[in-house]
Amino acid sequence: MAATIIDGTQIAGEVKHQVAEGIARLKAAGHPVRLTAVIVGTTPAAEIYAARQAEGCRAIGIDYNLIALADDISNRDLRAEIRKLSADPQVTGIMLHLPLPSHIDSARVQYAIDVVKDVEGVNPANIGYVMYKHVVIAPCTAMAAVELIKHTGVHMEGAEAVVVGASHIVGKPIALLLTEQMATVTICHIATRDLKYHTRRADILITAAGKPGLITADHVREGACVIDVGINRVTLPDGTRKTVGDVDFDAVKEIAAYLTPVPGGVGPMTVAMLLKNTLRSAELLAGVKEG
Amino acid sequence: MAATIIDGTQIAGEVKHQVAEGIARLKAAGHPVRLTAVIVGTTPAAEIYAARQAEGCRAIGIDYNLIALADDISNRDLRAEIRKLSADPQVTGIMLHLPLPSHIDSARVQYAIDVVKDVEGVNPANIGYVMYKHVVIAPCTAMAAVELIKHTGVHMEGAEAVVVGASHIVGKPIALLLTEQMATVTICHIATRDLKYHTRRADILITAAGKPGLITADHVREGACVIDVGINRVTLPDGTRKTVGDVDFDAVKEIAAYLTPVPGGVGPMTVAMLLKNTLRSAELLAGVKEG
Repeated sequence: MAATIIDGTQIAGEVKHQVAEGIARLKAAGHPVRLTAVIVGTTPAAEIYAARQAEGCRAIGIDYNLIALADDISNRDLRAEIRKLSADPQVTGIMLHLPLPSHIDSARVQYAIDVVKDVEGVNPANIGYVMYKHVVIAPCTAMAAVELIKHTGVHMEGAEAVVVGASHIVGKPIALLLTEQMATVTICHIATRDLKYHTRRADILITAAGKPGLITADHVREGACVIDVGINRVTLPDGTRKTVGDVDFDAVKEIAAYLTPVPGGVGPMTVAMLLKNTLRSAELLAGVKEG
Repeated sequence: MAATIIDGTQIAGEVKHQVAEGIARLKAAGHPVRLTAVIVGTTPAAEIYAARQAEGCRAIGIDYNLIALADDISNRDLRAEIRKLSADPQVTGIMLHLPLPSHIDSARVQYAIDVVKDVEGVNPANIGYVMYKHVVIAPCTAMAAVELIKHTGVHMEGAEAVVVGASHIVGKPIALLLTEQMATVTICHIATRDLKYHTRRADILITAAGKPGLITADHVREGACVIDVGINRVTLPDGTRKTVGDVDFDAVKEIAAYLTPVPGGVGPMTVAMLLKNTLRSAELLAGVKEG
């Protein structure tokens, strides 16, 4: 039986539609919805990404502006810049493009982002609030993964969930969100002795390792729900380049019950979650929602 | 083969000795080390606990004072009180006695504790920093559990670790700290379908469920390292009351390689971690250590 392929683009489209309605309501009531993106030491690739983001925001009514800073900015000046945006009542959302230059202490800069304006959910306090089941703004990619699982209707309570990849921005927040949904969660990573042992027993398998081909058919339990967070650029034998996830898609789709494609799965949903968070931040600041 | 019983009281004594030396050095250099405890709606039991804490602090050179607030204090006033202490340069550590009255939003009050002065590691930002492997101050009980494992010499990297209990203040931070140590971590809780399946495969088993007798000999793998975070008051058949953990101590000690007793295991080590954090906070504020 072939898996149901989870159409992240379509689900993201539905989310964006709802977000656009919420933003229209908020702006009609006179409240600003303004996302400021900060980029340090820009590259052509980052500029393309920022341009796409600007377009995505404007399409649903979010005012967007980009602040580009020199890549030799000091920690102190960068934190001061972020704090200024945190204090500016006209700015309702702040996002900080990663990676930052290596001399920057990312966690401390992220901490300077106002908790409510932190649309990516990267301020350590927002990560901590996730742990406290008192979510203000959750990290976008983790939210995207969990929302796609919810969309399948697969029960999370009591399910065996295995997360492959323990990054602080994806793997660990996903593990916490799944624990909050009362799944029994195992976090695997590079030091895991027997990855297959764990992945084969997973009702819900989320991979965020960034390794193409890591998850083969042999790693997956029949009927599992598989969410592929990996985004890897690979070169095919004929020299063309392609974007793939961590999962051997063609093989795993014959075994899993649900599977996200790459591209078109978690990626577009993450963008939708960023927009949803941007609405949520603006609503919290406007006082129309409780934090 | 009987397990090595981990003597938390003795290990805590060694830690306290080191902390006392650090505090003496700091004070000799003219830096204050002052812990302020805040208690809302005091009870006789809480007062006894606070008195013991005061004694423990003074014994190693920490200036201690207690602020008792009325149990009908508003969220706003309590946060203002905490923020005042956060801003007071004479206060180097803040701890907030839990539980708070039900009308208080604990997470928001904890967020008002200055990140560096948060000696219990309960500010959501400190929880988040744990996730970012950028630990400023980690939660005391979680630190205590991990320090006791380190003390046994059991390797955590690649080990199968199972945490029973997913509370935000104990189970989840322990899971994150063990992940940081590169263990493969599973978090079990009330909704876990087959607890024994998980506990029996654990090289390192940490229980923080608050259920006496939950972990029997049959739950434990031969040679495992078992850390019992549970503290439960039970009434024996003869009517006397006794403090026990979650583990059936007498049975499990015949199977495990290492086992903490209750009392005398994680409990005293948690107090030692609080004192260690109090020193760390004061050092960070004095600028003699990097955060």
